[in-house]
Amino acid sequence: MKAMKDREDRQRVTIEGVEPEIDGGRCPIKRVIGEQVVVEADVFGDGHDALAGVLLYRREADPTWSEVALEFLNNDRWQARFVVTELGRYRYTLMAWIDQFTTWYRDLGKRLEAGQDVSIDLLLGATLIKEASARAAGDDAKRLAGWAEALQSDQKKTTDKVALTQDQALPRLMAAYPDREWATTYEKELAVVVDRDKARFSTWYEMFPRSCAAKPGQHGTFKDCEARLPYIAGMGFDVLYFSPIHPIGLTHRKGRNNAPTCEPHDVGSPWGIGGKEGGHKAIHPELGTLADFTRLAAKAEEQGLEIALDIAFQCSPDHPYVKEHPEWFRKRPDGTIQYAENPPKKYQDIYPFEFDNEDWKGLWDELTSILLYWSRQGVRIFRVDNPHTKPFRFWEYLITTVKREYPDVIVLSEAFTRPKVMYKLAKLGFTQSYTYFTWRHTKSDFTQYLTELTHTKVREYFRPNFWPNTPDILIEHLQTGGRPAFMVRLVLAATLSSNYGIYGPAFELGEHLPYEPGSEEYRYSEKYEIKHWEITRPDSLKAFITTVNRIRRENPALQSNAGLRFHPVDNDHLLCYSKQTDDLSNIILLVVNLHRHQKQTGSVELDLHSLGLSPEQPYHLQDLITGECHVWRGARNYVELGLDPCPTHIFRVMRTIHAT
Amino acid sequence: MKAMKDREDRQRVTIEGVEPEIDGGRCPIKRVIGEQVVVEADVFGDGHDALAGVLLYRREADPTWSEVALEFLNNDRWQARFVVTELGRYRYTLMAWIDQFTTWYRDLGKRLEAGQDVSIDLLLGATLIKEASARAAGDDAKRLAGWAEALQSDQKKTTDKVALTQDQALPRLMAAYPDREWATTYEKELAVVVDRDKARFSTWYEMFPRSCAAKPGQHGTFKDCEARLPYIAGMGFDVLYFSPIHPIGLTHRKGRNNAPTCEPHDVGSPWGIGGKEGGHKAIHPELGTLADFTRLAAKAEEQGLEIALDIAFQCSPDHPYVKEHPEWFRKRPDGTIQYAENPPKKYQDIYPFEFDNEDWKGLWDELTSILLYWSRQGVRIFRVDNPHTKPFRFWEYLITTVKREYPDVIVLSEAFTRPKVMYKLAKLGFTQSYTYFTWRHTKSDFTQYLTELTHTKVREYFRPNFWPNTPDILIEHLQTGGRPAFMVRLVLAATLSSNYGIYGPAFELGEHLPYEPGSEEYRYSEKYEIKHWEITRPDSLKAFITTVNRIRRENPALQSNAGLRFHPVDNDHLLCYSKQTDDLSNIILLVVNLHRHQKQTGSVELDLHSLGLSPEQPYHLQDLITGECHVWRGARNYVELGLDPCPTHIFRVMRTIHAT
Repeated sequence: MKAMKDREDRQRVTIEGVEPEIDGGRCPIKRVIGEQVVVEADVFGDGHDALAGVLLYRREADPTWSEVALEFLNNDRWQARFVVTELGRYRYTLMAWIDQFTTWYRDLGKRLEAGQDVSIDLLLGATLIKEASARAAGDDAKRLAGWAEALQSDQKKTTDKVALTQDQALPRLMAAYPDREWATTYEKELAVVVDRDKARFSTWYEMFPRSCAAKPGQHGTFKDCEARLPYIAGMGFDVLYFSPIHPIGLTHRKGRNNAPTCEPHDVGSPWGIGGKEGGHKAIHPELGTLADFTRLAAKAEEQGLEIALDIAFQCSPDHPYVKEHPEWFRKRPDGTIQYAENPPKKYQDIYPFEFDNEDWKGLWDELTSILLYWSRQGVRIFRVDNPHTKPFRFWEYLITTVKREYPDVIVLSEAFTRPKVMYKLAKLGFTQSYTYFTWRHTKSDFTQYLTELTHTKVREYFRPNFWPNTPDILIEHLQTGGRPAFMVRLVLAATLSSNYGIYGPAFELGEHLPYEPGSEEYRYSEKYEIKHWEITRPDSLKAFITTVNRIRRENPALQSNAGLRFHPVDNDHLLCYSKQTDDLSNIILLVVNLHRHQKQTGSVELDLHSLGLSPEQPYHLQDLITGECHVWRGARNYVELGLDPCPTHIFRVMRTIHAT
Repeated sequence: MKAMKDREDRQRVTIEGVEPEIDGGRCPIKRVIGEQVVVEADVFGDGHDALAGVLLYRREADPTWSEVALEFLNNDRWQARFVVTELGRYRYTLMAWIDQFTTWYRDLGKRLEAGQDVSIDLLLGATLIKEASARAAGDDAKRLAGWAEALQSDQKKTTDKVALTQDQALPRLMAAYPDREWATTYEKELAVVVDRDKARFSTWYEMFPRSCAAKPGQHGTFKDCEARLPYIAGMGFDVLYFSPIHPIGLTHRKGRNNAPTCEPHDVGSPWGIGGKEGGHKAIHPELGTLADFTRLAAKAEEQGLEIALDIAFQCSPDHPYVKEHPEWFRKRPDGTIQYAENPPKKYQDIYPFEFDNEDWKGLWDELTSILLYWSRQGVRIFRVDNPHTKPFRFWEYLITTVKREYPDVIVLSEAFTRPKVMYKLAKLGFTQSYTYFTWRHTKSDFTQYLTELTHTKVREYFRPNFWPNTPDILIEHLQTGGRPAFMVRLVLAATLSSNYGIYGPAFELGEHLPYEPGSEEYRYSEKYEIKHWEITRPDSLKAFITTVNRIRRENPALQSNAGLRFHPVDNDHLLCYSKQTDDLSNIILLVVNLHRHQKQTGSVELDLHSLGLSPEQPYHLQDLITGECHVWRGARNYVELGLDPCPTHIFRVMRTIHAT
């Protein structure tokens, strides 16, 4: 310990203000394969000596660090970057040291320029070169030793020695064998979780498999779902997310429209998990067997669709856990088990787990085993219901454990709660997160919220997934806004966020009846009954959705949120934003009419510089929905947007106009 | 370790985003005795349970924590505060937990309001109360046990039990005995360094004691300095800072105007420390003896002046260290000792210490012993020359060691270097710091720089000390701006920063000749010769300085930087700002004419709310320099400011105007 303290006391370089670093290194940042980690830090020492440093990185499982030289930016800020190429966890940190040779070399230049005698200085340099030679091997060592000898030689004239130092190979070779004896290593090894590409870019379709039967009134099966796959894949979705597929409890089962008592034919809520047929690892018999499920998953994969399962950690009173592990539930003084509540509301069909129980470790492991079980069945995407009502540390344990075995697993957090809790869940490991998008409506709403999500630290760990609707949320705008409202919310979700999803077929069929005025619940909610959706209805938004998803697939700018930028419009009902790839090879510009009823006009003021556009040259805009082309010139351009046929423009901007 | 991990896994409350916290807790914040530490943090748990928490604080030497309850602000942000009352170091941290009783009590209220049967809930509450009773003692324990029993009783009606729970003593008593079994304690114990009041509010006068002789040409002595004390104290200064008082080396001594060779009568630079008479613990014989010094210090104290010494860790070639500890210096290949350099410039009269030497610990301890030595002689303020050229860790060690023994020591950092290095030195322990004020001139300069210093994290650890001039820096504005320039720079320094100083008598006598055009060095710099200052000259700024220092002393708003606020003026040459005490009992408003030659007029737009002024009621302004009174009304008021007699207004704002 004392030697360590002494070592630290001898270190003259400070490394601080490291970015990215979340909560002092407590939480990892996130990347997908192929993305860069650009690391910056304040690096400085006392005095005027030159510094050198490296960014160190490695896969967590691999003890060997790779190095990249730090480059000086300005104001004591340095930067380096590396690319993550494999799934799993990486570590990164920094090391920096006083660079005596560069200091000497720089000062030698100044002395020579001032015409000073440098004979003593050359001897000083020789010592440094000799020391480097001892750190080197082979030819490099010999070459350095040769230089040192020559600089020390009594036979050589000073001018000849000076000439030797001007060989550019000398500083290059010296940089390869730095003296790091008293180097400062940053005290933290920061972590990166590397996911697959779908963590960044995914298009979700949420569906109740039991509503897929060909005939009205029948309980849909996985086989029926198979028949539905071409329809969903055809619209361009790549994640098919099912409501829970497990047996549904009978005790206190809810009836239609969330009635407290159910009729004999009522099918109950899929979130009332567990019956005599089993719990979270079982399949509701009316849907089919495990073999049916894996067959469906394989068929889906063939069509570019990955199945996502819902993880709702709660039990119906009939769940096997209730009998097998009564210690995992809270017992009330009258001996009954505590049902879910939000006083004064009671949810007697649901028993929450009591995480503060004596066998909490047993509970953690069993719940973790549920994800491991389904991962073994080939499922790699999970949407977690209400994670904010379970302990944070539990999620960290569960996700870390599951991803250790299946690093390609994606876990989506369904938490519509306080902002800091939502962010905390992302920090603890959730791959993607639900957001407040659903309740954002005005230009300032979007500008503020998206700036927070994409231009602050949040972007390092929180991957938004935007949903215009869910089985729980039918916003007022969709209740009253008609077809244009559905189109606007779809385009906003699909272009503001590279991850988005819809709850269908309710969405494409324009389902908009609320349970009652002022409610965000659906009337005859699919949560409590089987639906028969007429997916071939002529007024379906299927074609429009297909177009939007094709645009997303064809334009890399929309597959990330990094390039999002808002542009001023002199009309508060018009929202204008762009996304572009780093190399500006793909630029998408959107104008959205946020007014619910009327055509809007206004002048857009583009940030031409960020789009790589010249103020003088005209540029082409192609409307990717209608196919129409426009020529714009300069920053300010006039826009006119009605509600019909579509209240949004999705332009592709073409920077170069060829000479005609 | 395993038990500890288990404990952490059971903790459901997160504490993060703690403020103030510097560099992840690596560096302490600073306060003076009597100041508050207001601590905020994001505190939240999973689910909807109520939380409770405390701020914990203690003197570092005392293992016992004191507690203050955290109060909820909004958006999961909590706050509490404590006052530091003793010199030295304090620690603070936070603890928070799920508050089961408050959750229960809140939910009980909702159930009662909804008219639900609460008989089972009362039993649940009884259990919680019984557990609290076990944690309590004496009457409290009995009282709680009584409640628990009553709520469990079969004899009592539910309505009677409910009535019992409505006794406000119940929640109060329950809050006194919380269940902290699974409480989360913040992982860091953050530190506060508590200084005496002068660390926050001080008025410095820098002087060369050798220039105090009554007769021109004579070498001044400490006795001469005694005679000068009433003059300095009379102007309202409270720190008298001396250039180094140690023996001055002869070898390579610099002549007048920094000439490379000196004449026999040249006195040399006081920063060329060390001769045959001794080093940093010795006194230059021509100044007097140690007894003379301590007598002077005592006389100064009688007049409200504290002596500050200059600490310049460097040696003349004649310094005893050079012979006694050759290992503390860098040897060149020719056997000579490396002198100070800034290539191609050479400073052969100075040997810097080589901190990278084998006996670095010996060097650290010896240098530390210099401050300890002078502290024992009663000196408690040190101004450190060029700290940025010595290792950071050395300063941390030195200041920590000295302040452990003498917690009232104040150390001022003289570092005019890169901003991050200046801030780092403050983080490592320097009590006050030189700044870039000297080179700030425009309205946007001041607004930006002062906002950084007083409204960001910087204010927690960096206490600025503003200097209009120093023996090394005569800015161009003072060279050419005449009397108004000296007045403006004085008022800016004295009112923007609660710590400020001047280098006198050069300042009050308007010394303004540069060494050569474009230079910031003085011609005939006092650094290299003895001066005889005619302090009674009629054009001296003495009276003006006396007025400004009186205003500072009489107005608490100017004794801190916390209340600094800039107000818009529609003229870029007029700078308007205010300082006010927290309780608004003292409000100072300044308007400064930054133009060098011409009268300026403009309309000030006051932030009335921050000054506690009503938009309707008129308010009085008293000009504290001229004594004139003005009545203003509303935010917008006209100002006219010439250069003569004074290019600044220092107003005291009187909020209430009595009915006439």
